[in-house]
Amino acid sequence: MGLIVQKYGGTSLSDPEKIRGVARRVIRSEEEGNRLVVVVSALGDTTDNLMKLAHKVSARPAEREVDMLISTGEQVSMALLAMAIDDLGHPAISHTGTQLEIITDSTHTKAKILDINTKRIKDAIKAGKIVIVAGFQGVDLSQEITTLGRGGSDLTAVALAKALGAEVCEIYTDVEGVYTADPRIVPDAKKLDVLSYEAMLELASLGTQVLQSRSIEVAKKFDIPIHVRSSSTDKEGTWISKEVRAMEDVLVSGVTYNEDEAKVTILDVPDRPGMAAMIFRRIAEADINVDMIIQNVSKTGIGRTDVSFTVVKTDLEKTMEIMKQVSDEVGAKGAVADDGIAKVSVVGVGMRSHSGVAARMFEALASVGINIEMISTSEIKISCVIRQEDAKEAVRVIHKRFELGKPIAKPS
Amino acid sequence: MGLIVQKYGGTSLSDPEKIRGVARRVIRSEEEGNRLVVVVSALGDTTDNLMKLAHKVSARPAEREVDMLISTGEQVSMALLAMAIDDLGHPAISHTGTQLEIITDSTHTKAKILDINTKRIKDAIKAGKIVIVAGFQGVDLSQEITTLGRGGSDLTAVALAKALGAEVCEIYTDVEGVYTADPRIVPDAKKLDVLSYEAMLELASLGTQVLQSRSIEVAKKFDIPIHVRSSSTDKEGTWISKEVRAMEDVLVSGVTYNEDEAKVTILDVPDRPGMAAMIFRRIAEADINVDMIIQNVSKTGIGRTDVSFTVVKTDLEKTMEIMKQVSDEVGAKGAVADDGIAKVSVVGVGMRSHSGVAARMFEALASVGINIEMISTSEIKISCVIRQEDAKEAVRVIHKRFELGKPIAKPS
Repeated sequence: MGLIVQKYGGTSLSDPEKIRGVARRVIRSEEEGNRLVVVVSALGDTTDNLMKLAHKVSARPAEREVDMLISTGEQVSMALLAMAIDDLGHPAISHTGTQLEIITDSTHTKAKILDINTKRIKDAIKAGKIVIVAGFQGVDLSQEITTLGRGGSDLTAVALAKALGAEVCEIYTDVEGVYTADPRIVPDAKKLDVLSYEAMLELASLGTQVLQSRSIEVAKKFDIPIHVRSSSTDKEGTWISKEVRAMEDVLVSGVTYNEDEAKVTILDVPDRPGMAAMIFRRIAEADINVDMIIQNVSKTGIGRTDVSFTVVKTDLEKTMEIMKQVSDEVGAKGAVADDGIAKVSVVGVGMRSHSGVAARMFEALASVGINIEMISTSEIKISCVIRQEDAKEAVRVIHKRFELGKPIAKPS
Repeated sequence: MGLIVQKYGGTSLSDPEKIRGVARRVIRSEEEGNRLVVVVSALGDTTDNLMKLAHKVSARPAEREVDMLISTGEQVSMALLAMAIDDLGHPAISHTGTQLEIITDSTHTKAKILDINTKRIKDAIKAGKIVIVAGFQGVDLSQEITTLGRGGSDLTAVALAKALGAEVCEIYTDVEGVYTADPRIVPDAKKLDVLSYEAMLELASLGTQVLQSRSIEVAKKFDIPIHVRSSSTDKEGTWISKEVRAMEDVLVSGVTYNEDEAKVTILDVPDRPGMAAMIFRRIAEADINVDMIIQNVSKTGIGRTDVSFTVVKTDLEKTMEIMKQVSDEVGAKGAVADDGIAKVSVVGVGMRSHSGVAARMFEALASVGINIEMISTSEIKISCVIRQEDAKEAVRVIHKRFELGKPIAKPS
């Protein structure tokens, strides 16, 4: 019998009828001869609603208490799913991160998994039970509850698949797989049948929300096949794995955008060695991840430069507080925030070796008069920061320019 | 500095503004020179709403999973209160029952506290923190989450007061203390300034909802003073303690009623020794508490009798399942349930030695044509089962008959 780790997202669990539907699906997988470990996210908008409550009682909720608060969401889901499975006549048992000993470091709201004790799960499987696990949460060595950051349930699922030696990690969601672009924005977007870890990693980090970036990194590291599929059909979704030969032929596999970031600019930083190091060291110390960084050339004659970078919006307030201090320390003229930006990206394989990919993207944007504010490129992606209100049009025009809506041969 | 355990119920925490109000009250107590341990219930109707969800996904939710589910309510409260206190500039830290090691037995949904490890609380107090604790929940020796039954947060508070050697356990609620009857039903009901553990115990077990019965038993056993008071005023509430001398003079201290019970009658039980033992042994094995038991005299000539008893409505379904089997086993004619009853009770001191108390109660009910279905008496209470629709009128007429609305001298 094979062991499968399944993960169900909040949209697949948003009401009692959907929960019962997931229960039936889990049982069907078991009856096909598999042993099942099921990771759940919080129901529907639970996490967002809890965060709204937090901000009503506190201007800056303490992060330790945020973890205490939002980890309840997954605990509710897991108990309801276990009840629903049990009610259909199959024994099921749920576990919190604390009970399973999903050991993390102590960085509240974005902890990293250090270790998972699989004894409790293995015992439950041996006893013939379907094992339900609260995603997104762990516990540090002082018994403090931690959470893994946005999309953390994906990471829980992949880490468990690794720890248990599962055959596959199935990620159930409300779409049928990974698309060349968001089908709500680009009607002729195509579902990808297969995708490399690398390409998925770029798509995820650039805004495709079906899978969290860190979970893909872990899957890549330990070579765990991921199957992204819909919880409402039986169709095959998108397989993500190491060797995707046919991918070599596909230059650009998708277009995506992201409105979660904000741009911060520190004005008139003295153009001396060590300034950038000083700025980004302080941000790193606050556990804030910076995405794109642009330093303009020195302004003629005055030996000063502007430094811009992007952070996720939820870190913006904290970042700006740090920037106020840092700006004084380095003798800059202050910092300004801009949360009206979007980042649009194309992702593929070997872009640098195919000349003209960047040019085609810029031409596409120019053809509809969209201004580019920042650019960053890597081996497998090109991203442009533009105005947020232009994002959807940008995705459509780029998708069309690269002819991603045309049929491609199914890779062998 | 004195140590105070405070407990806030769900109605005191039903919205963000009330949570901030509780935070200010906690801080005021601290600024008066006390060290604070604060136990919280779930916000407003959270527990009921979670149970409704459970019943939508499962006809008979597994009790282990019920505990997983409903224990999240208190975890949400504690995190929000800790954030709110922190936001007002006082360090606070919340704890789950698992983290504190509030060790219980393994009887899910009505576990008993076995031990509390106070190290974590003491360390937090030493570090100058206000300690927030999730009420109602504990953990068994296998790391399984348990809950303590309805009103269990009161028990958490009293047990912590004992374990920490607190000066007093303050129970904050939405009324100003314990009354001679529910003021919503009897407008001239009076607040009691002091009350003995025994009288409070009867009032609680008979339907007065300000304090859970088991919490009073523990307070009585360890002589912990309880102060029941309002979270919206600074008025003194009702003190509950061992020696209440003036109480000796007060024959009846309150009238209360309870609509939470249902009556079960087993029909035509053979009137032989051991029948009752067999019936109630089976109920006890299912961890169901029986309240009143009435066995009628044998029906003339046929050697059979009806046995009636009351259980809380939440146990009714389970009880009826057991009764169906037991009825066959003892050769009875089946069991019938009646959930349209109420129990109305008078509570006081030395009732048996004051003749006529029972008679006055029965007269009061008869004067408005209310029929009595079951009666039970003890040293300090008399209870009558009547139709549920008559309950409020019964409370009013009894309160008047015993002249409980008249002023009494404040006890010394």
